[in-house]
Amino acid sequence: MKIALAQLNYHIGNFEANTQKIIQAIYEAKQQNADLVVFSELAVCGYPASDFLEFSEFIALCEQSVKEITKVCTDTDIACIIGLPTKNPKVKGKDLYNAAYFIEKGEVKAVVNKALLPNYDVFDEYRYFEPATSFKCIDFMGQKIALTICEDLWNINDNPMYVDCPMDVLMQEKPDLMINIAASPFSYNHDEERVLILGDNCKKYKLPLFYVNQIGAQTEIIFDGGSLVFDKDGSLMDEMPYFSEALKVYEFKDGKVQGLSPIIHNPQNDVEQIYDALILGIKDYFQKSGFSKAVLGLSGGIDSAVVCALASEALGVDNVMAVLMPSEYSTDHSIKDALDLVKNSGCKHEIIPIKEATVAFENMMDPVFQDLPFNLTEENIQARCRAIVVMAISNKFGYILLNTSNKSECAVGYGTLYGDMAGAIGVLGDVYKTQVYKLAEYINRKHEIIPQNSILKPPSAELRPGQKDSDSLPEYDVLDKILFQYIELQKSSSAIIAQGFDEALVYCILKMVNNAEFKRYQTPPILRVSPKAFGTGRRMPIVGKYLS
Amino acid sequence: MKIALAQLNYHIGNFEANTQKIIQAIYEAKQQNADLVVFSELAVCGYPASDFLEFSEFIALCEQSVKEITKVCTDTDIACIIGLPTKNPKVKGKDLYNAAYFIEKGEVKAVVNKALLPNYDVFDEYRYFEPATSFKCIDFMGQKIALTICEDLWNINDNPMYVDCPMDVLMQEKPDLMINIAASPFSYNHDEERVLILGDNCKKYKLPLFYVNQIGAQTEIIFDGGSLVFDKDGSLMDEMPYFSEALKVYEFKDGKVQGLSPIIHNPQNDVEQIYDALILGIKDYFQKSGFSKAVLGLSGGIDSAVVCALASEALGVDNVMAVLMPSEYSTDHSIKDALDLVKNSGCKHEIIPIKEATVAFENMMDPVFQDLPFNLTEENIQARCRAIVVMAISNKFGYILLNTSNKSECAVGYGTLYGDMAGAIGVLGDVYKTQVYKLAEYINRKHEIIPQNSILKPPSAELRPGQKDSDSLPEYDVLDKILFQYIELQKSSSAIIAQGFDEALVYCILKMVNNAEFKRYQTPPILRVSPKAFGTGRRMPIVGKYLS
Repeated sequence: MKIALAQLNYHIGNFEANTQKIIQAIYEAKQQNADLVVFSELAVCGYPASDFLEFSEFIALCEQSVKEITKVCTDTDIACIIGLPTKNPKVKGKDLYNAAYFIEKGEVKAVVNKALLPNYDVFDEYRYFEPATSFKCIDFMGQKIALTICEDLWNINDNPMYVDCPMDVLMQEKPDLMINIAASPFSYNHDEERVLILGDNCKKYKLPLFYVNQIGAQTEIIFDGGSLVFDKDGSLMDEMPYFSEALKVYEFKDGKVQGLSPIIHNPQNDVEQIYDALILGIKDYFQKSGFSKAVLGLSGGIDSAVVCALASEALGVDNVMAVLMPSEYSTDHSIKDALDLVKNSGCKHEIIPIKEATVAFENMMDPVFQDLPFNLTEENIQARCRAIVVMAISNKFGYILLNTSNKSECAVGYGTLYGDMAGAIGVLGDVYKTQVYKLAEYINRKHEIIPQNSILKPPSAELRPGQKDSDSLPEYDVLDKILFQYIELQKSSSAIIAQGFDEALVYCILKMVNNAEFKRYQTPPILRVSPKAFGTGRRMPIVGKYLS
Repeated sequence: MKIALAQLNYHIGNFEANTQKIIQAIYEAKQQNADLVVFSELAVCGYPASDFLEFSEFIALCEQSVKEITKVCTDTDIACIIGLPTKNPKVKGKDLYNAAYFIEKGEVKAVVNKALLPNYDVFDEYRYFEPATSFKCIDFMGQKIALTICEDLWNINDNPMYVDCPMDVLMQEKPDLMINIAASPFSYNHDEERVLILGDNCKKYKLPLFYVNQIGAQTEIIFDGGSLVFDKDGSLMDEMPYFSEALKVYEFKDGKVQGLSPIIHNPQNDVEQIYDALILGIKDYFQKSGFSKAVLGLSGGIDSAVVCALASEALGVDNVMAVLMPSEYSTDHSIKDALDLVKNSGCKHEIIPIKEATVAFENMMDPVFQDLPFNLTEENIQARCRAIVVMAISNKFGYILLNTSNKSECAVGYGTLYGDMAGAIGVLGDVYKTQVYKLAEYINRKHEIIPQNSILKPPSAELRPGQKDSDSLPEYDVLDKILFQYIELQKSSSAIIAQGFDEALVYCILKMVNNAEFKRYQTPPILRVSPKAFGTGRRMPIVGKYLS
């Protein structure tokens, strides 16, 4: 039997585009003589469709798409496995299933429902779906297929999150192979985990596995593809591309994947993966929103320089507008560094000094502020004046504002709400400052795009004379290590201190993180590249008193 | 047996304050000769603690609090039922339970775990908790108590969301009474539903019920209290106060609640309830955040006038600073209306015209904008200049900015991001414009606070000459009706059109709602008063194509 894995980029709720893309893949699979073409989890509507799933019309549109898809399968004489949300016919339980249809000879021959519904981090599946409790293999061309959906194969570790295990039940039917359709989002360490866990399933059940993931960014969540084929001893036989669409046909015969030798998963390093993910994230945000042009404030510092370089690569240099907005506290070298970046990258730019606006506010506030000294207030006014300028360009010309805050800043609240924390999408909000430097080096791998001076000089917001980030924050190498323990690893304060970090410093940083929750609530969605990003995957009380 | 219901206002993660409050209630219950004192769901840590629950230290602090509480129960010789998160001792399944401890004679005599975990709207319980699968009654003073936690009693309607029903199992032990500890958030129609559903349980199981809810606002989610006592025929016997803390002792003897006659739930009307909820919401946001003073922009329109009146009531007039920020497009009557409000309410005020700032931006943008005509860009600049002014006052003096956008505006995106959509907490973001008028009338019930002219004049953002909301939006009475169908009732476009609304208008409004998702993502948390508020209870894709 020839199995095609279709690793595609879907657009949530864009039924017309998704259906056309699926149909085209069916034709392509048939052209390559496939007997069965497999699409990913909830392919028909896109993943995650969130509360769109609560609208009956939306579910009806899924069924309508599947009718069109079924017709094409019939016309081309190919079988198909495809994910979609379906109505739960039973009275008891939630109204929907996260389902896979097995379509053969013009009809839906089998429906498989997902049992293990991820509801952690960015996942909310139990919000919508009833878990399956009965399991049955699919018969196709004399073979028994154990079909499961994503998380159904992820319950194999030492501290399982779920009480049930669908494959254990399916094994009673002695299946010949496993197929798993997934929507498994990217983080820089997720590919290794994926290869490991899926291989462990093959070893446990002594079955080969065809695993199809989707690619593409859905606002903050990025899917990286990398669909996988394993032999029954858990050997990885093939790996489809990361961060791009692909369709590939495999021959499965005599219990084995034919014509392939075991390979070793040899991932790109973290920085390369983050780079590719951010490029895809920017590209898809714009393409799926119907926009093409980006604007950003360029300070001469490393963060905005990196965002500018990423956007230029993702959208094309002609579609990127960098705005230099010097104030009286901007240093000459900052303007030079920003202009060097513009020259290196080739993007468009404008220089709009903000002094006239800051003076205006100074005068306007004078009757109220009187002789009170310059402080954070005046710093914030500068940042907010810059936001007005870039948003004005956005509003007037249809450019979309990119946010350039990094994860270290977002974590401790080192940023101005409605100022530098503005933007439609946060490009670096899941990239620690120390990682931003590595990204800059990677961007400069062939020739210098990010000016060396932006990389080498001490970070500064330049909102008062001689200001440095290190005036208010610990050095980034220490800060980022403590943040990683608290945010990614969810370690408690005592556990972090036990690692040898200074107690007062740990409490100070954790308090900063918790006290900045109100700011993060209002920041743009952040492209997720780590296992724990700010945004929908991390839900903290704003008005809480724990470590604050 | 004498049962005390303690309806308290907890603060998430503030273990010291919560524990002290609980201990004080134990003493008070004992003083009133109670044998058992009952606290609400997750009382020890506050509800919803969100991802704080994922930190082992946080869970350890809950156990530590319970130790102190147990000691006081022993010292005072009283039994206690209290909610807290506990570790799941089993290897399989999620790491925590949403539990209730039954504490008697110095030890935890029984642990009851919640089975039905709400995971819709604002609820995320399946994110943290493993559902209970076994159920046992509690023995106390010769009585069998069927103790359940909140949602466990809510599975009684025609289309149950859960397959299991804990009370059906508990009934096998022939209990004498039911106790339910809850964290049941307010919406203006929730109290009626609560009385109905809980009464239905009594009728179904022929058992009396003691139900304790919490009160208090946790950022956007407001708990209204209203703890209830029912007799076994489903008669409502008592109702504790709404929107305030209370402790009350009931005598249960011979299968009946003693000394009380059936009462009828006679709720305040929706507007009165919304008013009380918003007052509590503002008060608790400030008190629990450690702030006391609020600032807001006062336009002369009805929304900011209502927010000003609510804040003055919640925080005291001396703690409210209203800022008038006229532009060249502000009408004379607006300034007069705003000043009338200031006079009526007695709050502080400042007048800071924004012309100097808008002229500065006009000049700064001139080289880029050149001869392009005045449009939305310049309107947004005005709104954003005002945000800079109020945020400057916030930063300089520690006032917290109140957002004054109403639900109709939030829905269709009629507002400026980083402008009038700024603020720490959205006071009216869950109140439709048509409801804002009713709130204004209610506020004026004794004497005029909101100037009649603010109520009577056609709504306008006053960002260009002669502008009216109705230039860009349908009349609010039609708009709000369609929005209610789409947002609160989650009706599909076809179902709304079938009710007789104009097809083009329905599509236009639904499209506006979906296209404004990116704005709402960055708006402040909104005090939730309806069954479906913007914010954590409504999760929509930003980059989606459905009805957009």
